[in-house]
Amino acid sequence: MDTIEFLKPLIRQTDSKIIFFVCDGLGGLPGDDGRTELETANTPNMDELASRSELGQLIPVLPGITPGSGPGHLGLFGYDPIKYQIGRGVLSALGVNFDIQPGDLGVRMNFASLDADGNVTDRRAGRIPTEENVRLLELLGDIELPGVELFLETEKEYRAILIIRGEGLSEALTDSDPQVTGVPPRQIEPLEPEAEKSAELLKEFAAQVRERLKDESPANMVLMRGYAVYRPYPTFEDVYGLKAAAIAAYPMYRGLGKLVGMDIYAVEGSLKEEVDQLEEVWNDHNFFFIHFKYTDSTGEDGDFAGKVARTEEADQVVPRLLALNPDVLAITGDHSTPSKLMSHSWHPIPLLLHSSLARTKKVDGFGETECSMGTLGTLRSKELLPLLLAHAGKLEKFGG
Amino acid sequence: MDTIEFLKPLIRQTDSKIIFFVCDGLGGLPGDDGRTELETANTPNMDELASRSELGQLIPVLPGITPGSGPGHLGLFGYDPIKYQIGRGVLSALGVNFDIQPGDLGVRMNFASLDADGNVTDRRAGRIPTEENVRLLELLGDIELPGVELFLETEKEYRAILIIRGEGLSEALTDSDPQVTGVPPRQIEPLEPEAEKSAELLKEFAAQVRERLKDESPANMVLMRGYAVYRPYPTFEDVYGLKAAAIAAYPMYRGLGKLVGMDIYAVEGSLKEEVDQLEEVWNDHNFFFIHFKYTDSTGEDGDFAGKVARTEEADQVVPRLLALNPDVLAITGDHSTPSKLMSHSWHPIPLLLHSSLARTKKVDGFGETECSMGTLGTLRSKELLPLLLAHAGKLEKFGG
Repeated sequence: MDTIEFLKPLIRQTDSKIIFFVCDGLGGLPGDDGRTELETANTPNMDELASRSELGQLIPVLPGITPGSGPGHLGLFGYDPIKYQIGRGVLSALGVNFDIQPGDLGVRMNFASLDADGNVTDRRAGRIPTEENVRLLELLGDIELPGVELFLETEKEYRAILIIRGEGLSEALTDSDPQVTGVPPRQIEPLEPEAEKSAELLKEFAAQVRERLKDESPANMVLMRGYAVYRPYPTFEDVYGLKAAAIAAYPMYRGLGKLVGMDIYAVEGSLKEEVDQLEEVWNDHNFFFIHFKYTDSTGEDGDFAGKVARTEEADQVVPRLLALNPDVLAITGDHSTPSKLMSHSWHPIPLLLHSSLARTKKVDGFGETECSMGTLGTLRSKELLPLLLAHAGKLEKFGG
Repeated sequence: MDTIEFLKPLIRQTDSKIIFFVCDGLGGLPGDDGRTELETANTPNMDELASRSELGQLIPVLPGITPGSGPGHLGLFGYDPIKYQIGRGVLSALGVNFDIQPGDLGVRMNFASLDADGNVTDRRAGRIPTEENVRLLELLGDIELPGVELFLETEKEYRAILIIRGEGLSEALTDSDPQVTGVPPRQIEPLEPEAEKSAELLKEFAAQVRERLKDESPANMVLMRGYAVYRPYPTFEDVYGLKAAAIAAYPMYRGLGKLVGMDIYAVEGSLKEEVDQLEEVWNDHNFFFIHFKYTDSTGEDGDFAGKVARTEEADQVVPRLLALNPDVLAITGDHSTPSKLMSHSWHPIPLLLHSSLARTKKVDGFGETECSMGTLGTLRSKELLPLLLAHAGKLEKFGG
């Protein structure tokens, strides 16, 4: 049985409050002196809190599996990331803050270059700048297709998104992106009878794009893939009875919160401003997902010292979080992003869980090594949320 | 979803190489001074490597479950040992190095003693020596059955194997072994209509055995059980994209490697000769399963000092493994075999995983206690293989 189904009858409504502070890509790998970014950072607040908390480590999906942001966060939200897979087209639409609706078909598009014979010469059109992407989408803005609404969104550089809104759309379609050069874009074909309408719509869209861009250079076509129909997820309210808030500076993470029914607070600024926002809406919710992006982006840049500094920035707001007197404060990440790898990784994520019901032990601060020996042991990310509910007194006893 | 199905689309082909050094029965129990066999052994190479590696412990099947060699190894190979059960008849055929083919029906046979009334007096025929087993099988060698081929193999003492090769064979049959004495062998009956042909074949075989052995003593009959039709497994190539080699001195373990499509290298000699073989075929594969038997057999003999010595023998080859510069080196076992128990056990198996992406910590050598506090935590055996792939850079990111 899916855990969220199992939990439903056990949910108890209370006023207790949970702060879930997600430092993206928090886990790392040892540097030259054997200490990770988190262990190197000067984090007096987290270190002091660690001995009054439970520590553990989270495996995001399965041992060895490196998750993208989608499955990384769905796991943290208590949804099995293998069962609840988010299609790329939907994830991209969330990432640009598009207000996607149930039934919408999201499609990822690359601007590409075709030669005079119609063969692909560059699948990324020379990585055109974002401004060129915006200009080209304007040329496509008046394309109309029968019975559906179209939305075009710039993602970044050569990447854009098409969202089709209408009845009976399907994602069971072949890619037009051939993945190689020297051949024409592939014909879009339905993979099941129900997808015939969607295939016809996309073929017509591709033909109109070709016509409108034929005199452009280098981007004179789009290649399509990552089809995904947005199907609503069970919400935090449905599943956990939580009135949840998502506070994030990046659209993608607000989108992920929205996917599970959180109220969204956009903060175009620093982590301090995210905490300002948290303080402002403290009375309106009982679950607060606060997302801090830069522990991941510095890791992806391979910037060990930068990740250390960003970790210290995260540490600085901890007293303000504690001052709100939450019943539960959890600090963790959606995956590890070791500077050494310059990418997401599969390594377990350090976890700190603070509540008055924590089974504590004296530890030497908050870091990967201490977390690997923590009282919580090694858990899957999807197992964490029930534990937060328990510490907040929000779960009834199971069975007589 | 089965993990091997989940992994398939994430597999990335690379030249990186993995050495998987399996010391059979590696885990133990503390002796008089509180140290296990592995902790007692002088293992300078493994101990030094431990602080540059990740440690953890593996549960072979489920907590408390003691596995045989079949499920022990299938777990290590990433196959759920509960889902992928190997029938005893097939496992025995692998164990004697019989070249079993898909569709073959393997049957385990005991030589037994019947009295004048046809009742079983000894289910093991006084544990006849292996040479007598060989002689008796020769007397049965010319038995023919319609439409199928028969193969007879000596296992050991009173144990032998019958393999039937033909179309439409089934394992859904009742045992002829009554499991008690004082009664006649049971009639073999089909458990489903499709098994009628196989039941008729085995009844006829049993009748002919009875006739041919009627004047022999003490073994004048065979009892049959452990029916298993060999169905091919997904291979390492199919599932992981690995070109795998199995290097082992014992046929059973080469057979287990063959079951998952590994190329087999038989080494009739010591562990040093296995490593010679490894060096010889280093360029031909990217995954190397090396099996060392004697950490298990000394444990089964209850020989604590012998297991210590065999563990030291395993340690001696570690520098040669490292000299090959593998991207990943894992050292573990298929199960524990504590000398104190003189048998396989359910205790977790110590695990050392060495790669340049290891999340290391300073440890006091390679042993059960350190492994129970290792950075990898406690994993199921079947979860290890994806982790090895990740450390070798052979897995793509999951989800956006």
